[in-house]
Amino acid sequence: MDIAIPLYDRFTALDAIGPYEVLSRLPDARVRFIAHEPGPVVTVNGMLTILAEDALEDVPNPEIVCVPGGWGTRALLDDERMLAWIRGAHETSEWTTSVCTGSLLLGAAGVLEGLDATSHWLELEALSDFGARPTGARVVEQGKVITAAGVSSGIDMALMLAGQIAGDEFAKSVQLLIEYDPQPPYDSGSTEKAPDEIVANIRTLVAAMQG
Amino acid sequence: MDIAIPLYDRFTALDAIGPYEVLSRLPDARVRFIAHEPGPVVTVNGMLTILAEDALEDVPNPEIVCVPGGWGTRALLDDERMLAWIRGAHETSEWTTSVCTGSLLLGAAGVLEGLDATSHWLELEALSDFGARPTGARVVEQGKVITAAGVSSGIDMALMLAGQIAGDEFAKSVQLLIEYDPQPPYDSGSTEKAPDEIVANIRTLVAAMQG
Repeated sequence: MDIAIPLYDRFTALDAIGPYEVLSRLPDARVRFIAHEPGPVVTVNGMLTILAEDALEDVPNPEIVCVPGGWGTRALLDDERMLAWIRGAHETSEWTTSVCTGSLLLGAAGVLEGLDATSHWLELEALSDFGARPTGARVVEQGKVITAAGVSSGIDMALMLAGQIAGDEFAKSVQLLIEYDPQPPYDSGSTEKAPDEIVANIRTLVAAMQG
Repeated sequence: MDIAIPLYDRFTALDAIGPYEVLSRLPDARVRFIAHEPGPVVTVNGMLTILAEDALEDVPNPEIVCVPGGWGTRALLDDERMLAWIRGAHETSEWTTSVCTGSLLLGAAGVLEGLDATSHWLELEALSDFGARPTGARVVEQGKVITAAGVSSGIDMALMLAGQIAGDEFAKSVQLLIEYDPQPPYDSGSTEKAPDEIVANIRTLVAAMQG
């Protein structure tokens, strides 16, 4: 089972590593981190560098595509090389997935036309630019296309996918192996649950950053 | 706020990236991934390579130490260089933390003597070899020493720590930014919740792997 995770400048690490930690445990899994060029790819804060093993075109037909998000997605929305890779991989994939704003790249590649989809809550409405119907669900499955919400949601998405591929017993084993029994110390993980002022503050900050 | 995450051959990526994704958002945070030598460090399955920025000794006095776990911890339990680094960093740290079997390294360095502590459920009892009292809690705080359970628990631990360092409002903002509103598709994330046969099967498999 070939799994490709395309990285790019200013991706969000957990978007990629959550699904990696689950999907790499599938029977005969081979996860490959790929990028425009093989070599180092740096997260948005400059504090973490992951090595991409191959160039995008070296892995044209993975069975699973998983596109992470991050601040860097905006710069790629008209990057024909990345979009062509996604489009091509999606043609033959068994599953095409995204985490966080990775869904904007699926959208820009034309994959989400007419589909329900999700993204990071800050960018959810942008999905409609690509003909998708934004939904607030944490994981949205539409045939072989699965989009997940912000950052940490990739773990939930990947466990669901592992269950579909290898069965419930297997997915439960993976959940136990990664001891995924979440006990967040706060209940502030969605816009419905977080205090209104926190949601508003973040929206203001992000709007200021995006200029 | 200097945060050091020591990596080593065959670490588990999510153990490190969960806390990184939270702690890197602290005010003035600087997360540094360090290792015996600067350069590539590979996870147990060989599918992911993270670049260590510095050697262990280049970061002797971080304010936060976060030691991830993985299959590779066993080989380091008598690695005097890693243990001396942990011991030295712990002397001046504000917080000394671990995820998963990272606690075995804290234990081998002498940090857990007489303390309650946790680890991955498969290695929980091994903590008593180091004078610690194994507890099944997901996050165990003992003064400045915080140990977390397996793999994914580092996210919970880091959010708790972020709250202590920067306040509840801040930690809640981080939780919302990473959209940590967990909705696992199964309820199999601990030995109490997983089906007994899955727990038994994993124990058997791991015992066989460890010869």
